[in-house]
Amino acid sequence: MDVAALLTSAGINIAITVILLSLYSILRKQPSNLNVYFTRRLASRRTKRKGSCCFERFVPSPSWILKAWETTEDEILALAGMDAVVFLKIIVFSIRIFCIASVVCLFLVLPVNYYGKQMIHKQIPSESLEVFSIANVREGSEWLWSHCFALYIISCAACALLYFEYKSVTKMRLEHITGSLRSPNYFTVLVRGIPLASEESYSDSVGKYFMNYYASSYLAHQMVYRSGTVQKLMSDAEKMYRVLMNVTEQPKLISCRLCCGAPNSFKMLSNEVEVDSVKGNTRYGDLDRDIREKESAAAFVFFKTRYAAIVAAEVLQSANPMLWVTDLAPEPHDVLWSNLWIPYRQLWIRKITILLASIAFMFVFLAPVTLVQGLTHLDQLSNAFPFLRGILKQKFINRLITGYLPSVVLMLFLYTVPPTMMLFSKVEGPISRSGRKKSACIKVLYFTIWNVFFVNVLSGSIIGQLSVFTVRQIPRKLAEAVPLQAGFFMTYVLTSGWASLSCEIVQPVALIWNFMKKFIIRMKEDTSDCTLSFPYHTEVPKLLLFGLIGFICAILAPLILPLLLIYFVLAYLVYRNQIINVYITKYESGGRMWPIVHNTTIFSVVMMQIIALGVFGLKRSPIASGFTIPLLIGTLLFNEYCRQRFSPAFQKVAAEIVVDMDRQDERNGTMEEIYQELMSAYCQLKLTKLISKDSNKSTDVSHHEVRDCIRDPEALKQELELVK
Amino acid sequence: MDVAALLTSAGINIAITVILLSLYSILRKQPSNLNVYFTRRLASRRTKRKGSCCFERFVPSPSWILKAWETTEDEILALAGMDAVVFLKIIVFSIRIFCIASVVCLFLVLPVNYYGKQMIHKQIPSESLEVFSIANVREGSEWLWSHCFALYIISCAACALLYFEYKSVTKMRLEHITGSLRSPNYFTVLVRGIPLASEESYSDSVGKYFMNYYASSYLAHQMVYRSGTVQKLMSDAEKMYRVLMNVTEQPKLISCRLCCGAPNSFKMLSNEVEVDSVKGNTRYGDLDRDIREKESAAAFVFFKTRYAAIVAAEVLQSANPMLWVTDLAPEPHDVLWSNLWIPYRQLWIRKITILLASIAFMFVFLAPVTLVQGLTHLDQLSNAFPFLRGILKQKFINRLITGYLPSVVLMLFLYTVPPTMMLFSKVEGPISRSGRKKSACIKVLYFTIWNVFFVNVLSGSIIGQLSVFTVRQIPRKLAEAVPLQAGFFMTYVLTSGWASLSCEIVQPVALIWNFMKKFIIRMKEDTSDCTLSFPYHTEVPKLLLFGLIGFICAILAPLILPLLLIYFVLAYLVYRNQIINVYITKYESGGRMWPIVHNTTIFSVVMMQIIALGVFGLKRSPIASGFTIPLLIGTLLFNEYCRQRFSPAFQKVAAEIVVDMDRQDERNGTMEEIYQELMSAYCQLKLTKLISKDSNKSTDVSHHEVRDCIRDPEALKQELELVK
Repeated sequence: MDVAALLTSAGINIAITVILLSLYSILRKQPSNLNVYFTRRLASRRTKRKGSCCFERFVPSPSWILKAWETTEDEILALAGMDAVVFLKIIVFSIRIFCIASVVCLFLVLPVNYYGKQMIHKQIPSESLEVFSIANVREGSEWLWSHCFALYIISCAACALLYFEYKSVTKMRLEHITGSLRSPNYFTVLVRGIPLASEESYSDSVGKYFMNYYASSYLAHQMVYRSGTVQKLMSDAEKMYRVLMNVTEQPKLISCRLCCGAPNSFKMLSNEVEVDSVKGNTRYGDLDRDIREKESAAAFVFFKTRYAAIVAAEVLQSANPMLWVTDLAPEPHDVLWSNLWIPYRQLWIRKITILLASIAFMFVFLAPVTLVQGLTHLDQLSNAFPFLRGILKQKFINRLITGYLPSVVLMLFLYTVPPTMMLFSKVEGPISRSGRKKSACIKVLYFTIWNVFFVNVLSGSIIGQLSVFTVRQIPRKLAEAVPLQAGFFMTYVLTSGWASLSCEIVQPVALIWNFMKKFIIRMKEDTSDCTLSFPYHTEVPKLLLFGLIGFICAILAPLILPLLLIYFVLAYLVYRNQIINVYITKYESGGRMWPIVHNTTIFSVVMMQIIALGVFGLKRSPIASGFTIPLLIGTLLFNEYCRQRFSPAFQKVAAEIVVDMDRQDERNGTMEEIYQELMSAYCQLKLTKLISKDSNKSTDVSHHEVRDCIRDPEALKQELELVK
Repeated sequence: MDVAALLTSAGINIAITVILLSLYSILRKQPSNLNVYFTRRLASRRTKRKGSCCFERFVPSPSWILKAWETTEDEILALAGMDAVVFLKIIVFSIRIFCIASVVCLFLVLPVNYYGKQMIHKQIPSESLEVFSIANVREGSEWLWSHCFALYIISCAACALLYFEYKSVTKMRLEHITGSLRSPNYFTVLVRGIPLASEESYSDSVGKYFMNYYASSYLAHQMVYRSGTVQKLMSDAEKMYRVLMNVTEQPKLISCRLCCGAPNSFKMLSNEVEVDSVKGNTRYGDLDRDIREKESAAAFVFFKTRYAAIVAAEVLQSANPMLWVTDLAPEPHDVLWSNLWIPYRQLWIRKITILLASIAFMFVFLAPVTLVQGLTHLDQLSNAFPFLRGILKQKFINRLITGYLPSVVLMLFLYTVPPTMMLFSKVEGPISRSGRKKSACIKVLYFTIWNVFFVNVLSGSIIGQLSVFTVRQIPRKLAEAVPLQAGFFMTYVLTSGWASLSCEIVQPVALIWNFMKKFIIRMKEDTSDCTLSFPYHTEVPKLLLFGLIGFICAILAPLILPLLLIYFVLAYLVYRNQIINVYITKYESGGRMWPIVHNTTIFSVVMMQIIALGVFGLKRSPIASGFTIPLLIGTLLFNEYCRQRFSPAFQKVAAEIVVDMDRQDERNGTMEEIYQELMSAYCQLKLTKLISKDSNKSTDVSHHEVRDCIRDPEALKQELELVK
């Protein structure tokens, strides 16, 4: 690929991006698109919608960029929660590190590459891209020290930035925990693997067990019911409700009994009702037995203090580790109810199955990747299909196919990956939505790095080559392959990067759906449809992949860095806009994805160093190789230190913190209130009933949150003022 | 190697073994050798030693075998603790599984191998050993189903036996915990990484922290002092003691203050003393400051209940995971005082360094292994050194060198490994002696498997071959190499196995040292010298290595199985005898080595299956290969299940159990007593002082235990009756 082909590709993509962004700035002003682009702020706007049709509405304007730029981190934290801030931190980190890398590589490494060999340079547009890469430096050149120096600067800067980011994210997470005084999840433990006793129901076992071992801190518990049977239960309960209404006129009883089956919670009911139900109504007993049969071996157990809950969650309960398995409960909206009833002893086998399935999926995916590879090597293609030779000889088509088509094909195939991985993660059996998303994120990440990076670099025929490869050859192989693939990576940044950002902001699918709904199907307006939560599982791997490409190409083919920088700046604006306007925050993982980001970045840095080692070997520069090895060891030690220092805070909650929180509550006297809220916080029926309405749609919708928004117009107003 | 060479080797080893065992049965009857062979029972015997010189003393007798055989498992449990029983379980498991394997392989696989090819068999003594191995089965033979069948039987039997053993060891561990009501370690937590406050001493920080967060359950604490400074402290304390004696005549003060510097423990001192010390004595303040300066950032913290201690040990204390790191304390005799003062933040880097050092050591060791390899391939040796050709042509010398010398050389080199690994494990910084031994055990195990098995099998030149190897070729390579090396493994079992067992029971080093001491140096009798604790870190890897060899050769070269069975039966008798008579139990790890044994055995079974897969591939039997793959997957799943089901019980103590123990104590009203004992249980000075006397001797001696023995003649009497 030469510079002209790259410029063609860049031209197409810049045009597409500019058109789409302008389109967005017009479309967002149309009132009919409000529930595509402003779902977060929708509820209040609906009332004061103006029908006016002024000229301004059809002129592109950069106002959204200004708004996205001006919003501060604190405002985003208040608006969209910690996960969004951590997500933006990935972009900020990338911008910072690639700024440093750009300065070093463009002013030091690029000239060295370009003048690396004694040759007469052509006109720049027809110059091959390889001239700008390290492939142009002659063997044994003394100028390789500049590459080694750049490597040191980039590695050290990356480690330093990573350290400070990890530190600040950890601090933010602690503040997030101490700030969420009202969250019921710190009082609650999810117990799974409740043993089956022949005479008692699960509920009785749980009550007995915790009354026995946690007598001083146990508050109440609430069983989890088997999924699928919930609807039936609901209808049963409704029938029974009507019957009871006639007898006792005490409607509160059933829902309460259903949700909080603990002995303690019974005490909250008035005595009259219990007497009534025992005395008069035999059908009530039927319902009770029915409910008991539907109980699964899992329950939420509430404790009087956060400390007690954390102790119960972290200590091994039973001598048989498959029984009485305790975990700190997720937030109420984060609970993945349909997974809770899965027997705990099934989980390990589910995990292994999914692991194998993911690996199989990764290898099956090699087919389209090989296809893509074929397109970049046009000569092979025209040999295989001679009838194409005529078309391929045309210069523009040739440029289009080598410069643009491969990454489009790859991108289209890649769109099928996140839903598949999400499904895999669901089957794995996590207890929370954020856990499912995190698991899917890791899978997509491995998948992307394997399929986009390694398979592309190692020439598509990795399976055939496995038999020739050895560990020692890997740096050398990579060093040979990466500079040759630099052209592909540049077009990948342009297509998959720039264009996908424009797609993200225009939201074509939602736009078309909205249009169809309004003008073709003429559905009644139902705003709740489009409230999506942020797709971290697709966006985080995307950013990290570009980071990996950037690190690896930095000293080998520095021309990619400006393209990447533009991508990250654009991403910063687009994602900020989307976070502020489109996606709603349903649940928080408290920055749990940062360790993934950290580890992947370290992996990228180490890959950069290993490939540099291979390159210095190829170029016969033992001094540069010798200097790279301590850097590699230093990076790995740094990673290990960070793992020791920071990562436990992302897995467990420290006792210190919760004890202080408990004391604060006691001082304020808010404990009783919290207990009251706790009792109704986790309610399987309410949520499932709401969700079940839309269960056939793929988006995981929580109407609940939207309605909360509606209920609190004051907060919404503040929010609107912030983002205006 | 032919059968005759094997028989030569077997003959030499049987002769050596019989001679040494007879020698032992005579030597053990000599009164002068009592402190070599009966160190465990020494203390009481010394008083009633008879000098009579009857004829019986010089006749070999099998009485020790009978005694070793008759002792029951319960007696050994009472006598030598759970670790010894678990160690014997390894041998029992091996005997059981290799009995099954022998029956299957000798009656089914061996005839198939022997008549595998249409050939005229020679006389058995001059028959090559390869005729008995799978190498003699022709390609595409239908009789390979017998090998596959044997594989299934052995794998299934191994898994079933492993499951029941794991279950019974887990049960035993739980009983061990519930049975040790008096152990102070379940009340105690070792805190490391105490943060340095500018104004307070470490001791004050610890007191304040635990009074703050564990007010209801905190009892007292005791600082750990920096190693090396302890002696100086002792002398200071003694000086001060003399001064104080003159002033207050209260000698108890210093030792108490030194050991238990907690605010709570101050209360135990009488008020008079405190007043005295504050009023009259300025030098006392000096001592106090001096002690404070010597405090390290570690402390033992005592709790009122076991449950509280376990909670404190398992919960993450601080938001900074490098501060206030808590672990359940080891038993008092198990504490490795010299490692406690190591700053916690150093540990991770120590671990990495030691890991790298161990790997380096493993590769450096390739030199002697290559030498050994040279001896088994005599033709190469005689080509390299032509002057040896004359000697090597002699038949007996040839047999001796191919059949005997290689494993002797290897064995001699291997003797340097355990001390090195023990040193490595010490530097790594474990807090307990049992932890150090466990860590050394794992290192020796990896080392042995790598150097004895893989390097030998893969022809010594592994480094040269690394560049040709790939993952897919491994089964094939192993399948080619293992049958060829079967002869070496047989001689290895004979020399390293049988002969080393005889060495173990005769204890030549201790015997010679004892002789020298008595008749040459004429030292006064000091019995405490020879009290060794059982060297699990050398013996467990040895047994597991033989297990690995057994599994791998079982279906390939079944002739090894009877030799192995004899080895294991002999080992059973010898180790029982040694456990009963020689080694004393200073500390218990509570069967923590069983997970290592389990994992290694699973590894051996999986290796057996992988090699079988390779062999079936070589022999072109796709059906047999096809049947092996599900077996392999099944074995791995079984291992994963065991890991889920059993291994957490070896890492943590379940809350259920300790709560029940606490309640039992409360019911019996023994808590106060336990608290009293607790205060003096962990005493750095007492133990170090005792040990420092002998610190220049390599054996880790605990006089303490020996004296305890002397103090309790009743217990000793019972013990003696048991083993008579």
